[in-house]
Amino acid sequence: MSVRRVRIDLAYDGTDFAGWQFQPGQRTVQGTLEAALRRLAGGEGRRVRGAGRTDAGAHARQQVADHDFTGRHGDAELQHSLRGILPPDLRVVRARTVDPAFDARRDARAKTYRYRLDTTPHGDPFLARYALHHPDSFDRDRVRDALARLPGRRDWSGFTAASCEIVDRIREVRRAQLIETGTEIHFEFTADGFLTHMVRNVVGTLLEVARGRFEPARIDRILESRDRSLAGRTAPAHGLCLMEIRYPGEDG
Amino acid sequence: MSVRRVRIDLAYDGTDFAGWQFQPGQRTVQGTLEAALRRLAGGEGRRVRGAGRTDAGAHARQQVADHDFTGRHGDAELQHSLRGILPPDLRVVRARTVDPAFDARRDARAKTYRYRLDTTPHGDPFLARYALHHPDSFDRDRVRDALARLPGRRDWSGFTAASCEIVDRIREVRRAQLIETGTEIHFEFTADGFLTHMVRNVVGTLLEVARGRFEPARIDRILESRDRSLAGRTAPAHGLCLMEIRYPGEDG
Repeated sequence: MSVRRVRIDLAYDGTDFAGWQFQPGQRTVQGTLEAALRRLAGGEGRRVRGAGRTDAGAHARQQVADHDFTGRHGDAELQHSLRGILPPDLRVVRARTVDPAFDARRDARAKTYRYRLDTTPHGDPFLARYALHHPDSFDRDRVRDALARLPGRRDWSGFTAASCEIVDRIREVRRAQLIETGTEIHFEFTADGFLTHMVRNVVGTLLEVARGRFEPARIDRILESRDRSLAGRTAPAHGLCLMEIRYPGEDG
Repeated sequence: MSVRRVRIDLAYDGTDFAGWQFQPGQRTVQGTLEAALRRLAGGEGRRVRGAGRTDAGAHARQQVADHDFTGRHGDAELQHSLRGILPPDLRVVRARTVDPAFDARRDARAKTYRYRLDTTPHGDPFLARYALHHPDSFDRDRVRDALARLPGRRDWSGFTAASCEIVDRIREVRRAQLIETGTEIHFEFTADGFLTHMVRNVVGTLLEVARGRFEPARIDRILESRDRSLAGRTAPAHGLCLMEIRYPGEDG
């Protein structure tokens, strides 16, 4: 039996998935992908390892996974067959053989997440699955002030879920931006890595700043105190999308 | 009891609706809106009349309805209350009192429909509900040639469903365009009115032209012969969206 390591680039609408991570009896991205690969490899069941675990309801435009494939399909055939098996809300953008040492999670150098807000008064039905409806007041200057306090290499405990099992809470946020496009407002964050609920907790805090309930300087206090109770509520998952993952040798 | 005529501008994601038209036991746009209005008017049940009946699975960015409202809410309150009652996939963009003679269907001067194609090889999961996945070959020159043959005032029987109950099949198509945007191709059609499945049958025919199976001149033959069997298959409803409806005194 031959084995080779493949890198699989995925995109998914997370609405109808119970998140990335395999859970028995649940429709998860990892579980759905593993079942498809098992089918192609004639029942052989090896794990798929993702670059990050997206939450239930969160989306991905680029998620990257690695897998030790035991089937006979060449790369083009593997890619084509996976597209044929997988549902419309979980798509394989690319599948290709990589160095056996490739590790989708450990090798990732940077990830970018986007959080979308729909600011229309009525709520755009075409954004209902992909953006948080937020018709409330939104003070851009205050939010920009708060965003400017985020980049840097620091301990993110104050923005991390209690359930997070990772001990090392030091991450480097390289970019924290506000992007306006028509009736939408996006927050975009690039970092070397993210912790459980980190983006959603930062967004929940920024929304309090936008409403005028928190001062922008609150960001510094949360970071310094590492006290989760000072941050805003965790923003809903459906506004969140993993946009991009960069590996060594790739642009950006 | 006071009655006044209101115009309601709607937007909906048609995926989970069995179309516009009321059907007992089915989730339809008309039925859902009528139930909400009945609730606000204390059980009084008057009909809602739509500018056009969209198919099951087809969407609308602007649908217009008229209704004789018997409740006490002013326009702002009516709009606000409807937004509170209606689900995320059926939204009221605006509700306002109009002349009692206003008729959403008869008064409409022009309607615009868009049909979206997703040309990515893998199928974009965020377009799966809103665009037909069409990674096949697409000959733009041939399609433009075919599109140029559509505008004009003519009998559209050759592109109309057998089930269409409308006897007068004369409509004026004012615009038939190909729009490319990133990985998507859109067909856009403006006319004084459309017949049952007319856009979907035209699109199904254009896709045969794009693939090289039909000559562009086939359009003329279908129009002249009024023979539905010469046209392509009805394209799936989920790629279709009612974009805009124009009334006298409005731009365009």
